[in-house]
Amino acid sequence: MGPHPAVAAIRLAVRRVLHDLLTEHHSTTAALPHAPSHEPPPLSASLEREVPPSPPLVLVACSGGADSMALASALAFESPKLGIRAGGVTVDHGLQPGSDARAAEVVQRLRELGLDPVDSVAVAVGRAGGPEAAARDARYAALDTAAERHGATAVLLGHTRDDQAETVLLGLARGSGIRSLSGMAAVSGAGGRYRRPFLELDRQTARKACMVQSLPVWDDPHNADPAYTRSRLRHEGLPALEKALGKGVVEALARTARLSRDDADALDGWAGRAEATVRDATGLLECAKLYALPPAVRRRILRRAAIAAGAPAGSLFARHIEEVDRLITGWRGQGAINLPGKVVAQRQGGRLVIRQG
Amino acid sequence: MGPHPAVAAIRLAVRRVLHDLLTEHHSTTAALPHAPSHEPPPLSASLEREVPPSPPLVLVACSGGADSMALASALAFESPKLGIRAGGVTVDHGLQPGSDARAAEVVQRLRELGLDPVDSVAVAVGRAGGPEAAARDARYAALDTAAERHGATAVLLGHTRDDQAETVLLGLARGSGIRSLSGMAAVSGAGGRYRRPFLELDRQTARKACMVQSLPVWDDPHNADPAYTRSRLRHEGLPALEKALGKGVVEALARTARLSRDDADALDGWAGRAEATVRDATGLLECAKLYALPPAVRRRILRRAAIAAGAPAGSLFARHIEEVDRLITGWRGQGAINLPGKVVAQRQGGRLVIRQG
Repeated sequence: MGPHPAVAAIRLAVRRVLHDLLTEHHSTTAALPHAPSHEPPPLSASLEREVPPSPPLVLVACSGGADSMALASALAFESPKLGIRAGGVTVDHGLQPGSDARAAEVVQRLRELGLDPVDSVAVAVGRAGGPEAAARDARYAALDTAAERHGATAVLLGHTRDDQAETVLLGLARGSGIRSLSGMAAVSGAGGRYRRPFLELDRQTARKACMVQSLPVWDDPHNADPAYTRSRLRHEGLPALEKALGKGVVEALARTARLSRDDADALDGWAGRAEATVRDATGLLECAKLYALPPAVRRRILRRAAIAAGAPAGSLFARHIEEVDRLITGWRGQGAINLPGKVVAQRQGGRLVIRQG
Repeated sequence: MGPHPAVAAIRLAVRRVLHDLLTEHHSTTAALPHAPSHEPPPLSASLEREVPPSPPLVLVACSGGADSMALASALAFESPKLGIRAGGVTVDHGLQPGSDARAAEVVQRLRELGLDPVDSVAVAVGRAGGPEAAARDARYAALDTAAERHGATAVLLGHTRDDQAETVLLGLARGSGIRSLSGMAAVSGAGGRYRRPFLELDRQTARKACMVQSLPVWDDPHNADPAYTRSRLRHEGLPALEKALGKGVVEALARTARLSRDDADALDGWAGRAEATVRDATGLLECAKLYALPPAVRRRILRRAAIAAGAPAGSLFARHIEEVDRLITGWRGQGAINLPGKVVAQRQGGRLVIRQG
């Protein structure tokens, strides 16, 4: 009898990502010990064969919650079959009393799954950008450090399709365009370090997989705290939307994320290439040439130019760019436009000048 | 003392659209009676002056509900000042007992506002695409006919920002990409006939404007009927989303619609131009050239090709196109792929063949 369908599903999702990682690993490893060759191997290759390359290490980031515990169990099961070493990291955000004891418990559980090395990293969460953003920034910094310390090839993250749907709705609430609808990428971070094997898998499957494997899981009280936007969305917003629109909403939001990401990438690429063609010999943006571009491309160029001039990307909203765009499309002698980061945009003699004032 | 802010807001919104219509009207009218000229007018121009061009006619589509009654009142107020004739049409869908009497009442109210001509058009609603789509199709067909019969320049529709937000969420639930997130256009229909002056105005303002002008309004019971998806969204889905994400959700959704529309237009344009470059001398799609395109552009070309081959656009989902795309990006000898409308896609000798089977 095979494993429970939920366990089969989480293992398949992890196996696919590990396969990708191995393919990438081999294509970047200089010496391919099993590469076919009709020539006798040179001396250096013979020497390298005597010191086989160490197997790649993959870490799982684990909070002790159902999603990441399911991920850890699947990684522990699949990695030995592929000659991959599997380790784990848990981050102690220090936001709740007893969080250190809980981190120690997660370390213990990951070791019991056979993961090695296993680390617990304590971080100090700042306040920049709100509590959720600050915790996230601290967490990724700690995971980056852990990955580098252990020389890990990749760090697996337990985000599910439900998390993705919530992320799309959070992006929708910003109303800042399709990039913010593209949610989380399956591959992200420096060198594609972060991988999200469960992005197409629903939360219920991960939870079920823990249950049938008798894995104890920890429910973060933050996830149910209505002070957090994501928690309100999870427990009230999305269920109400499902009730109105039908059960397929989560899947539709996840698909929207994938499609929007590809669209945003294509348009960013276009804007990058077009930008070079709309600058004059001195590097200034020519209004007539900008005017001839599709609005979607022009506004992306304006946004890039504002950021290049020093406007912080996170404070630059669609309405700022729309106002700068009116210097091109609705010119009636407006004055300079103030953008975040003390950046000023103005039209001068058919050129658009964007610089820090 | 000026008008109530809500009344001022609806009038401003209508005035802007009427200005646009006049500008377009003048630029397409062959004889411009007031065009400056340094030459004596030719005889034909003199003759034309004696028969002044009839002022353009703008119709309002009015259900008797608050949005379209507010729109009718603003049109009645603004049009005489701009030399525009204003009329109205109400569509009797015949879906409720007494709908004919109600239509007669709406006609009466529009006449009392000073609109002329005013029409009531009875339609037979079919069943194609579900009750909401069938009613909409019948309504637009009737409005098209009315506009042509009266020689109207434009038909104003009372859709508000709230309607737009609902439309974006309905598109999101389909999960079929950014075109379905672009909601309703401010200008649409043949020759830009349909105009939506209230697309940036909230429903509450329209309702308030009716109240302070003592305009009686009719609440369509369908709008509160939970059997309708849009009604569930309006009364449950959106309020829950606002509770989770904050009051700015409706505005953010409307902004998402505008941005998505521009993005979708730009990408459709790109796909249209790229399509010509990826066909061989016999008109077949070359897989290697398709492969080199960004996924967002390639999938749009595949979609266009499937529709051109006879697949009905409304039945062609993102998952169909993803499967065809794997013939290009994940070729491992797959067989032919069946698409809606008996269209078949298959890879043959480096070419992608899409045709009705």
